[in-house]
Amino acid sequence: MSELDLIARLTSNLPPHPAIRTGPGDDCAVLHPTSPGLDLLFKTDAVVEGIHFRTDTEPERVGHKALARTLSDLAAMGGIPLAYLVTLGLPERHDPDWAERAYAGMQRLAQRHGCALAGGETTTTPGGILLSISTLGTAPKNGAILRSGAKPGDGIFVSGELGGSSTSHHLDFEPRLAEGQWLASHFRPSSMIDLSDGLAGDLRHILRLSNAGAELLSSAIPIRRDARLNARSESSAKPPLLAALTDGEDFELLFTLPPGSSVALLDGWKAAFPGVKLTCIGKISDEPGLRLRDARGVREAPLHGYVHFQQP
Amino acid sequence: MSELDLIARLTSNLPPHPAIRTGPGDDCAVLHPTSPGLDLLFKTDAVVEGIHFRTDTEPERVGHKALARTLSDLAAMGGIPLAYLVTLGLPERHDPDWAERAYAGMQRLAQRHGCALAGGETTTTPGGILLSISTLGTAPKNGAILRSGAKPGDGIFVSGELGGSSTSHHLDFEPRLAEGQWLASHFRPSSMIDLSDGLAGDLRHILRLSNAGAELLSSAIPIRRDARLNARSESSAKPPLLAALTDGEDFELLFTLPPGSSVALLDGWKAAFPGVKLTCIGKISDEPGLRLRDARGVREAPLHGYVHFQQP
Repeated sequence: MSELDLIARLTSNLPPHPAIRTGPGDDCAVLHPTSPGLDLLFKTDAVVEGIHFRTDTEPERVGHKALARTLSDLAAMGGIPLAYLVTLGLPERHDPDWAERAYAGMQRLAQRHGCALAGGETTTTPGGILLSISTLGTAPKNGAILRSGAKPGDGIFVSGELGGSSTSHHLDFEPRLAEGQWLASHFRPSSMIDLSDGLAGDLRHILRLSNAGAELLSSAIPIRRDARLNARSESSAKPPLLAALTDGEDFELLFTLPPGSSVALLDGWKAAFPGVKLTCIGKISDEPGLRLRDARGVREAPLHGYVHFQQP
Repeated sequence: MSELDLIARLTSNLPPHPAIRTGPGDDCAVLHPTSPGLDLLFKTDAVVEGIHFRTDTEPERVGHKALARTLSDLAAMGGIPLAYLVTLGLPERHDPDWAERAYAGMQRLAQRHGCALAGGETTTTPGGILLSISTLGTAPKNGAILRSGAKPGDGIFVSGELGGSSTSHHLDFEPRLAEGQWLASHFRPSSMIDLSDGLAGDLRHILRLSNAGAELLSSAIPIRRDARLNARSESSAKPPLLAALTDGEDFELLFTLPPGSSVALLDGWKAAFPGVKLTCIGKISDEPGLRLRDARGVREAPLHGYVHFQQP
């Protein structure tokens, strides 16, 4: 069976989705969101062999990761997934099961979140495998949470724990869609982003677009167990706090909220998501820059892993 | 300037578009079609160095081709472009101007057709350059023209001329958006597709989805001058008719229409698009298969270039 036939098979007989009028197999997919007047969210992202996954990574996990990355971006707007398109670049020589297994990983995740496969394309690539996903979602009209609304005095919150993602979390994380939608509809954060480049880097995106600065409390930053274990087992590994600030691929939600809402937020979150940590890690200030406060005082936060950073 | 900074610059200060609430720079683009209740058209496609363009092809033309391919798919639904996303995979070593020039080629085409750049991502690839585009468009509710509606007796029409596209047409073609929208709103073709794999292959897509067959009149098939020149200059080149049937990348519109509308269609088209040929090349039948009729009789049409085909 040729690759084209395979993709045709993988994208046929899909479960029906109320928003899909015409799925894979025509010139374009035809969609109609079931609620009228919604805003649309539109995002593309790619994972590449040797950069975002290893040659021996299970294809199911590669498919999962590729789609989950774009769903995490939808989550950071408070959005609801609608449909996704797949572009798969395969080298001339490849494992004939690879595409089928990657699609299985994608579809398992997609179906959990009501996201319809709207089309799949395959091409030959001269190098390694490349999997590019485009995802379409919806948000209430003017209801998407942007990066640009943080105000001085707002608390800074983060879901889950950070650092050490490369051990396994980066392949297996579940995008925080339910959490993002819950936040958008109950608390409307003043800004929100998903953590892909690392806390220190991604918070700076919010600060730049919001024309603000921030101070983080070092002791409050939630550190993933993998980051602690890495630091203990390898002398060359990042110290845990630095890993939590700069490792990247956490795919947690980082958001800001006016200070009066903090107690209601933390109580409501605990009831809604008892298995997921939520931590207030600092506050937005009008002084530019990103600072870390610990027992010894205040200093500039690192941007990338190994630059301008002295561990106590 | 890093690639990321460059893409940030290329995707900033974009001209405003009425449907774009938030463009590049946030987690997702936020769109709102200006007319409510429309259907959405969603398509992805990729071009790869060494397959769809040569290493020495001007980047502007590569950008143009990549976007134009997806716009041609929208055209084949009678759709209107809304926004597009770019994923650019670049090898470690590449011409630093490449991305900027490719974006310039895309944006020139996009602006002619009112299609907004909604986001751009860059990644490193181990092999050559890969440019993947995802495009979102709109069509009136239930108004998109599918591949599946051809009926026995319908006339088969094709825009422009076919064959010899690899000389230059495949890099420079203008997607038939105006023509597709005009057809959809004035004549509502029973089926429509854009020609990317070649007339013989793409017509078979319509036939398969419409459960029908077809007969083409060999002498009616419009042949591009490049196909005739190629055949004259190279003894190994395809004969012109075979080139027109199988060359691919024509990006013309192929559609079917009940026979009673033919005269009004040809008259209306001539007035609306005086510079573009429109030709009736055959008719849909209830006998399965795709046949060619010429002075010597009727025979099976070729599927691919060199198989089962005897030139007279």
